[in-house]
Amino acid sequence: MKKLINATDDVVVEALEGMERAHTSLKVVYDPKYVVRADAPVAGKVGIVSGGGSGHEPMHGGFVGMGMLDAACPGEVFTSPTPDQMLEATKAVDGGAGVLHIVKNYTGDVLNFEMAAELAAADGIDVEAVVIDDDVAVQDSSFTAGRRGVGATVLAEKICGAAAEAGRDLAAVKELCERVNANGRSMGMALPSCTVPAAGKPTFELGDDEMEIGIGIHGEPGRERRPVASAAEVAKMLVEPILADLPYSEGEKALVFVNSMGGTPLIELYIIYNEVAKILAEHGVEIARNLIGPYIPSLEMQGCSITMLKLDDEMTELWDATVSTPALRWGA
Amino acid sequence: MKKLINATDDVVVEALEGMERAHTSLKVVYDPKYVVRADAPVAGKVGIVSGGGSGHEPMHGGFVGMGMLDAACPGEVFTSPTPDQMLEATKAVDGGAGVLHIVKNYTGDVLNFEMAAELAAADGIDVEAVVIDDDVAVQDSSFTAGRRGVGATVLAEKICGAAAEAGRDLAAVKELCERVNANGRSMGMALPSCTVPAAGKPTFELGDDEMEIGIGIHGEPGRERRPVASAAEVAKMLVEPILADLPYSEGEKALVFVNSMGGTPLIELYIIYNEVAKILAEHGVEIARNLIGPYIPSLEMQGCSITMLKLDDEMTELWDATVSTPALRWGA
Repeated sequence: MKKLINATDDVVVEALEGMERAHTSLKVVYDPKYVVRADAPVAGKVGIVSGGGSGHEPMHGGFVGMGMLDAACPGEVFTSPTPDQMLEATKAVDGGAGVLHIVKNYTGDVLNFEMAAELAAADGIDVEAVVIDDDVAVQDSSFTAGRRGVGATVLAEKICGAAAEAGRDLAAVKELCERVNANGRSMGMALPSCTVPAAGKPTFELGDDEMEIGIGIHGEPGRERRPVASAAEVAKMLVEPILADLPYSEGEKALVFVNSMGGTPLIELYIIYNEVAKILAEHGVEIARNLIGPYIPSLEMQGCSITMLKLDDEMTELWDATVSTPALRWGA
Repeated sequence: MKKLINATDDVVVEALEGMERAHTSLKVVYDPKYVVRADAPVAGKVGIVSGGGSGHEPMHGGFVGMGMLDAACPGEVFTSPTPDQMLEATKAVDGGAGVLHIVKNYTGDVLNFEMAAELAAADGIDVEAVVIDDDVAVQDSSFTAGRRGVGATVLAEKICGAAAEAGRDLAAVKELCERVNANGRSMGMALPSCTVPAAGKPTFELGDDEMEIGIGIHGEPGRERRPVASAAEVAKMLVEPILADLPYSEGEKALVFVNSMGGTPLIELYIIYNEVAKILAEHGVEIARNLIGPYIPSLEMQGCSITMLKLDDEMTELWDATVSTPALRWGA
């Protein structure tokens, strides 16, 4: 295993130390671990907390900041964070207007966020939760009942973060998050796997000419293994199941997010984006916004995922609103 | 070879098509190939043009936009662009105040930019050039006489782009670019290599437990191959030659740029940044600004590079100025 790390046990904490040293807009708490806006809690603002296993950076710590998350709870690599992390993060960001938990649909994450919400409620904090389950590839998976939560999470965090920043109340921010989830769909694929530091070997093995379509962000099995295909064919294999699951009428608008699984370079993402744009043009779908890059990767796994969000005017306006985080920044 | 491409011959042009579809602030010209601000030429503003082999995205096309480059000329993967690309890009961005070429020190790039400058001058355009040669690893290399140009190029493009946007004249922007180069130093390393699409096999081979210190961004040989070391040791092997080459006095300020060679994930970059920050604290160097991410990668190569720029107040202010490009954006 070749990685730029010290001890495998120290990967998460040392990366957090690096984040804290790099970004003065953030504060890192180490026991229990969470990343929080340095100005938290923001009085009168709905707080937004997310979290999940590490190894998907910048998700979620890189999305903490003005206009997006108030706090993020990192678990060990590909491992759910614990309820005490979520509880302490929730307390830290409660500005009196309640706290929304945005939770990717993995069983450990869901159960632990539920427990944290109960404990926070017992402390008198108003907590709501939305579970993101946008991955159309498979129903149920290695760590998930129902569909997995993937790329739509990034979009929900941005859009809901903007709504909270604009002063909307907890019920409104929660409704918006549910709407993003209801209108978001994703599907991913992998070429080679990645290696979790503590495991020391690839999460799964693919043959020299194989790819896996419908892969999860922890290497969970997808729909099929098949010979490596062209970018045009891969784009089609990802976009068509998304459109089959949530059809678009002529003229409807989408935000298209082409994500690198980590080890796929930007030049290839633009080739995939080009193919996706051609397919969507054939379907009469207008790409109104886009996001291209490694925003929810799986360590150094090669491959990509595509997320489509059917946009309405409100979501578009909130997407465009000022954001200032380490990984997404505009208008600030 | 597993890549998300169609035909190897179409990689660059299809990625450009994807960029053009994704970013309405840019225009792509295909014959000869260059990426240009949609609003070019900006009357009265110094134009800034860079370029080089593809495979290092977002460099340079992702840095085209308000506050950074006016145009970028992409060659084939790891291959210099041609003089006609540079000439046409220069003409397209000439707003009457002259054009600066920012050139990474690779022999092909330097010769071709020189020829383009002569042709542009014959057309009555005032052209100046600065060659970036910040890589301390080796003197002379596979494609270079002198030192290679690497990470400081990103910083020069940002800082000079801000100066041009602020209305400085060609002589001032050139002087500033020379100053950034004189104060910038870099060194990189690789774990596994990358594979150029047209070659179809890794650029170089490293043993299962080997890394190469001082690698170039095209896989050019570095200083030494040695067993894989810890992040702390790697950081030291990269920072110490930089400091030996350009010593810092107690209290001097640096911009520290930790770059992924492509396949190294962000969690590892933060671990490296953490180690770099500790080393620099011991030397009394203040990290005033930082940049962390894959801004000058080498396709999917794993590894990292470190660039340090000794900052003065003017460079700091220009670094902070508004920029709006696909890859670097703030204040806009």
